[in-house]
Amino acid sequence: MTKHETMRSAGLDAAFGELQELLGDKLSTASGVIAQYASGESFPDAYPPDAVAFPSSTDEVSEIAKICHRHRLPMVASGAGTSLEGHIAAPSGGLAVNFAKMDRILEVNESDLDCGVEPGVTREQLNHYLRDRGLFFPIDPGADASIGGMASTRASGTNAVRYGTMAQNVLGLTIVQPDGTVIRTGGRARKSSAGYDLTRLYVGSEGTLGFITEIKLRLYGIPESILSATCGFQTLAGAVETVMQTIQLGIPIARVEFMDETQVRACNAYSALRLPEQPHLFLEFHGSPAGTEEQAQVVAELAEANCGSGFTWATSSEERNRLWRARHNAYHANRAFRPNATIWASDVAVPISELPNAVLSVRADIERNGLSAPIVGHVGDGNFHVSFLIAPDDADEKRRAEDVYSRMIHAAIAAGGTCTGEHGIGMVKQDYLIEEAGADAVASMRAIKQALDPLNLMNPGKIFA
Amino acid sequence: MTKHETMRSAGLDAAFGELQELLGDKLSTASGVIAQYASGESFPDAYPPDAVAFPSSTDEVSEIAKICHRHRLPMVASGAGTSLEGHIAAPSGGLAVNFAKMDRILEVNESDLDCGVEPGVTREQLNHYLRDRGLFFPIDPGADASIGGMASTRASGTNAVRYGTMAQNVLGLTIVQPDGTVIRTGGRARKSSAGYDLTRLYVGSEGTLGFITEIKLRLYGIPESILSATCGFQTLAGAVETVMQTIQLGIPIARVEFMDETQVRACNAYSALRLPEQPHLFLEFHGSPAGTEEQAQVVAELAEANCGSGFTWATSSEERNRLWRARHNAYHANRAFRPNATIWASDVAVPISELPNAVLSVRADIERNGLSAPIVGHVGDGNFHVSFLIAPDDADEKRRAEDVYSRMIHAAIAAGGTCTGEHGIGMVKQDYLIEEAGADAVASMRAIKQALDPLNLMNPGKIFA
Repeated sequence: MTKHETMRSAGLDAAFGELQELLGDKLSTASGVIAQYASGESFPDAYPPDAVAFPSSTDEVSEIAKICHRHRLPMVASGAGTSLEGHIAAPSGGLAVNFAKMDRILEVNESDLDCGVEPGVTREQLNHYLRDRGLFFPIDPGADASIGGMASTRASGTNAVRYGTMAQNVLGLTIVQPDGTVIRTGGRARKSSAGYDLTRLYVGSEGTLGFITEIKLRLYGIPESILSATCGFQTLAGAVETVMQTIQLGIPIARVEFMDETQVRACNAYSALRLPEQPHLFLEFHGSPAGTEEQAQVVAELAEANCGSGFTWATSSEERNRLWRARHNAYHANRAFRPNATIWASDVAVPISELPNAVLSVRADIERNGLSAPIVGHVGDGNFHVSFLIAPDDADEKRRAEDVYSRMIHAAIAAGGTCTGEHGIGMVKQDYLIEEAGADAVASMRAIKQALDPLNLMNPGKIFA
Repeated sequence: MTKHETMRSAGLDAAFGELQELLGDKLSTASGVIAQYASGESFPDAYPPDAVAFPSSTDEVSEIAKICHRHRLPMVASGAGTSLEGHIAAPSGGLAVNFAKMDRILEVNESDLDCGVEPGVTREQLNHYLRDRGLFFPIDPGADASIGGMASTRASGTNAVRYGTMAQNVLGLTIVQPDGTVIRTGGRARKSSAGYDLTRLYVGSEGTLGFITEIKLRLYGIPESILSATCGFQTLAGAVETVMQTIQLGIPIARVEFMDETQVRACNAYSALRLPEQPHLFLEFHGSPAGTEEQAQVVAELAEANCGSGFTWATSSEERNRLWRARHNAYHANRAFRPNATIWASDVAVPISELPNAVLSVRADIERNGLSAPIVGHVGDGNFHVSFLIAPDDADEKRRAEDVYSRMIHAAIAAGGTCTGEHGIGMVKQDYLIEEAGADAVASMRAIKQALDPLNLMNPGKIFA
């Protein structure tokens, strides 16, 4: 043990006694438990925490923070564990704080179209609860992520083209600060110009500034009419051009998802879809019956002009659910597509006019390098995902994948886009953040981190090294 | 002169020489000029700066900041001077930096529906420029404000119910930090989860963190069909209930503005409108011809059920413009309504279900206290404005107005709303900010201010004392 490790161990022992007194069996150091909080999805390394806490209230989280703060113990929040860039790993050890037990829906205000939830509520749980009230919450990353995790990574998903991301749909937060102080940000008014927008600062801060222990969300009425369809295209370019034109015309399309040929093959196999093996769009229109018909007709004409095969409608709600479940299961389909492969699931976003070129370039680069890497995307936002499926023991394939990955991100940034549309920075994209935002802007982010977490206890090593 | 004043004066003299060398005749200390940068609209006190700079580029602003930083000289940004809460006043003196000369539209990307502008561009200038391209920028505070000022106060206006506020429509910023460092935030991708959302932090920060010298904005296609109407109501409650029900039904109404009877009287006189003297809604629907007809029909039925008089359509674009110009001129109409009165224009926002009660309570309180105070509101957001028209020499009337004002804000906060929906805090609402957000949350805002402007040079005395 180094001197530093000895000190940390002594600190941990002291803290651990206090935490155990506070939490009883809601604290675990069992190796099987801490191993689950070492990496998250699709992150290659494992950094287990020293212990895991499962608090059940804001007050308890505040007490946890006070203890960790006193003993200088790092704190790492986690929800469903579905983040992709190493967000929940504990490279400095410390205490993982998992919010699975804080999964209550606290209030639903039907007349104001808002609700309050604890961070461990998952998006499917929330929507199941809301369905009978005729309401829904649109943000849907592929996984059944927790709302707290979704807020922390500024998640979005298939509906963002119409309904926005977590940035637009979180009305307010309860935050436990690193020293245990509890603050509330935002409120239930639809807009405010009262002071700095702390809500938007905590959304997307990846657990580096404080614990989110309560979230107020915007809700929406389930549309009177929902029309879903798939459409195959002779070329990838035809599919992406259709999306670009739809957005440029201002059609309020609710979902417009792209899958390249490889992704269609993987989803056909995993979700028994039987789609023709060609680039596809999955589309959905929300509105009144007349409104959705009208939108669908315009987009169908655009698709036809871009050599689309015509819309195949998912008419029943069962068919529609099956379609979108298949889309959400793309990640699992890719796991099954090349069973022993390591997956790197990366996302970028570009201005919509750059989308055709960006997707075509990456596809060509993947093929040139003989890689297996399906492309799928929330293309209405200019956002697409490449899942590199890499043979774990093939160093050359890994190197080629790294090169394609890196060229894709450099190109997205050069095109005025971003190194991540919805996954976040975590431990993986820190250099790209500097490339994108510039060293001086990242220095401002660090200054804010230093101001709100001066001891660097909250999820250290994320966003910035 | 106190010792402090002597030191400041010496600092100013030294800084002034350097500023004059940099700026030549783009620097003024003429009393007639500095007097224009002492208060803004509707702010009762005057705090003139020591000098005013009129820079013409980001580089020049950066050089100005370096000089002021070196000499510890406060810097106060201003645009069109239409802010309402004392934002541009210089209570610590120093240099006013006015962006009127930085009024270039830098780029319009029609295919990406975005543009880049300098901060001195006004909203009317931008929309005039965009019109021939079939595009528009929807955010429209009453005045012809500058885009930089609108970003700084997180402005919104009549279209926010559909298109959001500046918070949702600024894609990225160029910021000159207090020491002259230039950073860029955000980008042209429609979404990003790359690091802290600095864009949203600077939007609404009222010039307290840095100078905004360039703004990237979202644009929208001018809708194929625009329908505008007015509708009178027998009761104020009927008008406000109609709005609440429209929002709850999820109708994508583009504008829904409320005027109480007093405001209608003032606007009739100022803008020759000839509306019946009763509470009114001004409405607008955007979409396809079939879509706007359908929306308008639903809302017309709601209005009828709430004892509305039926829609009066503004069919030509001239009529429509006249209608909205009258709405935007409500502030000037109020000035003319009681010519020598002092105006306090205050705004609050509440959850939509609280709106009928909030507006009715304020109206009753105004009448109980024998005050003249028209109410107007972007009621689709739960946001309304009360313009207290106070005889300047009537201390008792002033005291009664202060009491109504203060009760209105306490009630909005108690109802889960905000002390300001779109005007900002400035020098006026600092205590209400603490009441709304809590002292600990405001302490976090202060910590951020301290981190990004450690010498407190940027617009000191605003948001926080």
